[in-house]
Amino acid sequence: MDTTSGARYVGIAAELREAIMRGEYAVGSPLPSETTLAARFEVSRGTVRQAVALLAAEGLVGSRQGARRIVVGRERSQSFAELNSFAQWAQAMGYRVSGQVLEQRRRGADAAEAVRLALQPGDPVLSVLRLRSLEGEPVMLERTVYAGWIAPAVERIPPDCESITQALYEDVGLVFAYGEHLIDAVAAGVEDSRLLVVRRGSPLLRQRRVTTTHEGRPVEWSDDRYRAGSVTFSIRNSVDANPLVRQMGDLRLMT
Amino acid sequence: MDTTSGARYVGIAAELREAIMRGEYAVGSPLPSETTLAARFEVSRGTVRQAVALLAAEGLVGSRQGARRIVVGRERSQSFAELNSFAQWAQAMGYRVSGQVLEQRRRGADAAEAVRLALQPGDPVLSVLRLRSLEGEPVMLERTVYAGWIAPAVERIPPDCESITQALYEDVGLVFAYGEHLIDAVAAGVEDSRLLVVRRGSPLLRQRRVTTTHEGRPVEWSDDRYRAGSVTFSIRNSVDANPLVRQMGDLRLMT
Repeated sequence: MDTTSGARYVGIAAELREAIMRGEYAVGSPLPSETTLAARFEVSRGTVRQAVALLAAEGLVGSRQGARRIVVGRERSQSFAELNSFAQWAQAMGYRVSGQVLEQRRRGADAAEAVRLALQPGDPVLSVLRLRSLEGEPVMLERTVYAGWIAPAVERIPPDCESITQALYEDVGLVFAYGEHLIDAVAAGVEDSRLLVVRRGSPLLRQRRVTTTHEGRPVEWSDDRYRAGSVTFSIRNSVDANPLVRQMGDLRLMT
Repeated sequence: MDTTSGARYVGIAAELREAIMRGEYAVGSPLPSETTLAARFEVSRGTVRQAVALLAAEGLVGSRQGARRIVVGRERSQSFAELNSFAQWAQAMGYRVSGQVLEQRRRGADAAEAVRLALQPGDPVLSVLRLRSLEGEPVMLERTVYAGWIAPAVERIPPDCESITQALYEDVGLVFAYGEHLIDAVAAGVEDSRLLVVRRGSPLLRQRRVTTTHEGRPVEWSDDRYRAGSVTFSIRNSVDANPLVRQMGDLRLMT
């Protein structure tokens, strides 16, 4: 793997992202051309293209119009193109991120947790309540249930660890390989409102997720709640993988 | 394309989905085995597997555990694996869906709309406010801005049309090919609360999206707001397309 160029395009994306956040490239204005950016960063146009594609996946720049991309937004947005932990995403974006474990205890899995973690009800799990901050502000409350087999490694992690994902990789070589996510909006409850410093009943963006190993073994089940306005999720998709539209068209021709 | 088997697995998925919604397969219980389902529906195990994979993408059933899949949830969830319109998704799920245009007018694009639709500010656009219902309940408010070039075709669509996507395909052959989506939570405003019949300030799931043709030409820019509890978005992803985690590991080895 070419780690160097990998790091390079991520670094270029970070510089461009900061320039957009600073307002150097205003919303509605075009980014410089690939040729200009390639000369400025002393890299190939292909590397620039990778960097700009990353910004597009985050929703910061829009679709190509001729040689240029237009700046579309300045929101913090978390792409679902790949599985990334909150800390990995925030670090890649260059945000200051921190985390604090508020509660951590072992208990038995309830029926729903057992299903999601491929356990039997009553099997040991580790329940963790963690508050995440971005740029010093509390933005997300994470209620995670870890399968018992990974609990000892999680308990060894310092309570103010930035990236659990990275810590588990370094400690036991665990790779979070697949994620299934359910996303909706909920009203802040008592604990949510106290810890995220928002009014009760105010909107939160909720992400519930199961993360598994490469072999499909569930590691954790989590309910993550983001303060409204703090983070946006971005997703790109296409009709190409979608049999339904074509099928509707074809069916119409057959009737 | 094998439309017949395509329709078949979608139909089987719909039957299994209804059984889950009815509670015939309870949350936490396994689906019948592929062999059993293949015999019941008189199809190949491959067709059953496609149907069950669709349910997994919707978050209704969990990861494989041996030969069986476990029922995980009974929520209405809209998969982002492919680009689907609201009506296409709802119809594929077998839900009763309806739509009603509440306002529709031509005007000039503002600066942000121009960027998103690849127009110049002031260029003609068609602004449409549409209320969407599922199973007779209002669940989503759609504020869509169409590029001027497609406006005449949109204006020909009856105001109670179920699927705009399907109508535009049938009328002018337009295919919505790519989508970029930003997802967050917002508080219901005055108009939101009146039309969705919720309290002011209550949580809404917001999806802002730009949809383009195969050539990347933007067709519409929309702000869609779902009543909390009505619909969940589901997304699956993996670390495999993600250079960042590997890079973090590699960088650590190099320091």
